[in-house]
Amino acid sequence: MNLYKDLLLKSETNAILLVADGLGGVPHPEHGFKTELEAARTPHLDELAKRSVLGLATPVAPGVTPGSGPAHLSLFGYDPVEIQIGRGVLEALGVGVELQAGDVAIRGNFATKDKDGIIVDRRAGRIPTEESSALIERMSSKIETIDDVQVFLTPGVEHRFAVVLRGPGLCERVSETDPQKEGNSPNPPKALVGEAEKTRQVIERFVTLVEEVLAGEPRANTVLLRGYAEKPEIEPFPEKWGMRALGIATYPMYKGLARLVGMETPDVPGGLMEEIEHLERHFGEFDFFFVHYKPTDKAGEDADFEKKVRAIEEVDAIIPRILALEPDVLVVTGDHSTPSLIGAHSWHPNPLLLHSRFAGAEDAAKFQEATCKLGYLGHIASKDILPLILANAKRLKKFGA
Amino acid sequence: MNLYKDLLLKSETNAILLVADGLGGVPHPEHGFKTELEAARTPHLDELAKRSVLGLATPVAPGVTPGSGPAHLSLFGYDPVEIQIGRGVLEALGVGVELQAGDVAIRGNFATKDKDGIIVDRRAGRIPTEESSALIERMSSKIETIDDVQVFLTPGVEHRFAVVLRGPGLCERVSETDPQKEGNSPNPPKALVGEAEKTRQVIERFVTLVEEVLAGEPRANTVLLRGYAEKPEIEPFPEKWGMRALGIATYPMYKGLARLVGMETPDVPGGLMEEIEHLERHFGEFDFFFVHYKPTDKAGEDADFEKKVRAIEEVDAIIPRILALEPDVLVVTGDHSTPSLIGAHSWHPNPLLLHSRFAGAEDAAKFQEATCKLGYLGHIASKDILPLILANAKRLKKFGA
Repeated sequence: MNLYKDLLLKSETNAILLVADGLGGVPHPEHGFKTELEAARTPHLDELAKRSVLGLATPVAPGVTPGSGPAHLSLFGYDPVEIQIGRGVLEALGVGVELQAGDVAIRGNFATKDKDGIIVDRRAGRIPTEESSALIERMSSKIETIDDVQVFLTPGVEHRFAVVLRGPGLCERVSETDPQKEGNSPNPPKALVGEAEKTRQVIERFVTLVEEVLAGEPRANTVLLRGYAEKPEIEPFPEKWGMRALGIATYPMYKGLARLVGMETPDVPGGLMEEIEHLERHFGEFDFFFVHYKPTDKAGEDADFEKKVRAIEEVDAIIPRILALEPDVLVVTGDHSTPSLIGAHSWHPNPLLLHSRFAGAEDAAKFQEATCKLGYLGHIASKDILPLILANAKRLKKFGA
Repeated sequence: MNLYKDLLLKSETNAILLVADGLGGVPHPEHGFKTELEAARTPHLDELAKRSVLGLATPVAPGVTPGSGPAHLSLFGYDPVEIQIGRGVLEALGVGVELQAGDVAIRGNFATKDKDGIIVDRRAGRIPTEESSALIERMSSKIETIDDVQVFLTPGVEHRFAVVLRGPGLCERVSETDPQKEGNSPNPPKALVGEAEKTRQVIERFVTLVEEVLAGEPRANTVLLRGYAEKPEIEPFPEKWGMRALGIATYPMYKGLARLVGMETPDVPGGLMEEIEHLERHFGEFDFFFVHYKPTDKAGEDADFEKKVRAIEEVDAIIPRILALEPDVLVVTGDHSTPSLIGAHSWHPNPLLLHSRFAGAEDAAKFQEATCKLGYLGHIASKDILPLILANAKRLKKFGA
């Protein structure tokens, strides 16, 4: 990867990466054997496809279904196998927590323990979010530090919350307290390596303190912890790729992923319209713009073909506003596929469209899987999209003489 | 790469690699959104395409624009990131200098220094080539050796020349004397690693000796040195690929690159006709023939669409003579793309055509980017072309049982 680092050029050019989450699909037998992208009316994307180059991008490796973390890391030009984002970190990002180097992030569940110390409900009856938020507030006021380690608690949905430990000498290599099955006692945390002993003690003490705060609660009288993860070391995007980057996303997890790689991430309430307004307002202030659109993935996960079609059409409708900005490079793609036939993330490659003055064009009839598979860009790894963006933005000098 | 080494078979077969430098292009908006290859009348290549397989070949990596060195190394089947050719070596090859293992090659400029030792002109007023050649002759006669190091000087164009140091214990890791900007003194050479101290002393002494020779010259009264580079260690092509190879090129740099990998490189004055005559005359004496054609690249670099079209048509015209030799394998491709839209080398993959009795055929309508992108060979790395040539020449045995 130093190959690219040594070739970076300063330039005034800009690029927009528009990610329709879970964009790709597979032909659905109950919908005329079409994919959602094929079924959607996308006049603007189709017109753009005629003046662009297409391809299919594999997020991680053949057959690998990625989570949101690796799927986005690859789009940001990082090797998603080399840099892995632990569960706790992703959970923390998902509830909007800021992480610093050395932090250990943990996924927490409220749970119900009987008088014998047996877990009888791992989710404390899925207590409502308001209730768990109130408990988190109580816990936060009582447990601010453990020795020299700061403790940050953030409520999630229902019984879920995030813990961030911040202090010197922390280490993620501690065993989980969550026994994974009801009818067992919580597991005592064990240090899996010598240098994790301090973290183990903090976790043990944390559970004890929490149980004191929660004493008398009918359901949420203890917590189970898992997915301990240190913030991964990631070379910031602006250094790695030489572009100041703005990440525009409405969901905390995607904002968090963008922030994790060093993008600036404004608060953008609302939906795609508000995202595009933000893009328009701040275009010119950054070199690279990541715009994230979630509803395509949600509809795919709901196995709702028609809803995903409508979500794709919503993306299509804003293409003219993006083109009106005249970006030097525009990429439209997904982070991973979410076929409504499957109702979940899948391993299928992402339809990919790249538009720039220098990219070429292939007169494709429509932006869809069937044209992308024949595209000039070929079948590439998602992590190779970013070098292509740089090249088209004239931000890479010649390699060798 | 040992994979292939272990599979090499002896055979009587032969192969021709015809490289039209900078062949690939991108659709040009002022020329009907066609590439040069699409616009050119290429009846012979088109007829050949019907009986061949096509593909697109990426020289180095996605988005990377290669110089001539890495672009050719990849065509010769070497990893162009692993084996890098320093600037000084390429410059020396470009003026036709022979290099041996352990040599350090250096790019030199004549320059003008004022009485205070300040560089007032880094190019000595771009003195004419005849003038600088005469100076090089004077310098060569006075500075043949420095201690046990031989010094070889070769004039380039105008103020440019190449220095080759040959002797025991030389090392390229010395800082450049060229201050890069007028108004500064030349930088004293510094050894960047301990083992470069001897080379540093030789360079320092060389500059002193040169200034004695040039004393009194009105413009070219000193020299600036940069791009120090050792000849890279390269496994010779005949050993690596089991084929005696002839490199037919008229430009010194391409002859030099062929010689660097151990091809024989005759002097071929003139153009493509003379190259083909040489090929015809010596066909049968070698197993592998690299034929280099420069005008496609030059026209692309001149941003001259029509001129590049004509250059491509010149290549097309000699195809029947090449086919008349009945080579077992014929590959037609570029080393990198040079779209006239960009007017420079680019990152776009090379159109690739491979013809052999065993390659298959795909009945493509024309040899152009738009058919190559759909080709049977797919989107491959340029360094994988050579194994395909070997396979089609029946020069690779079965791997495993």
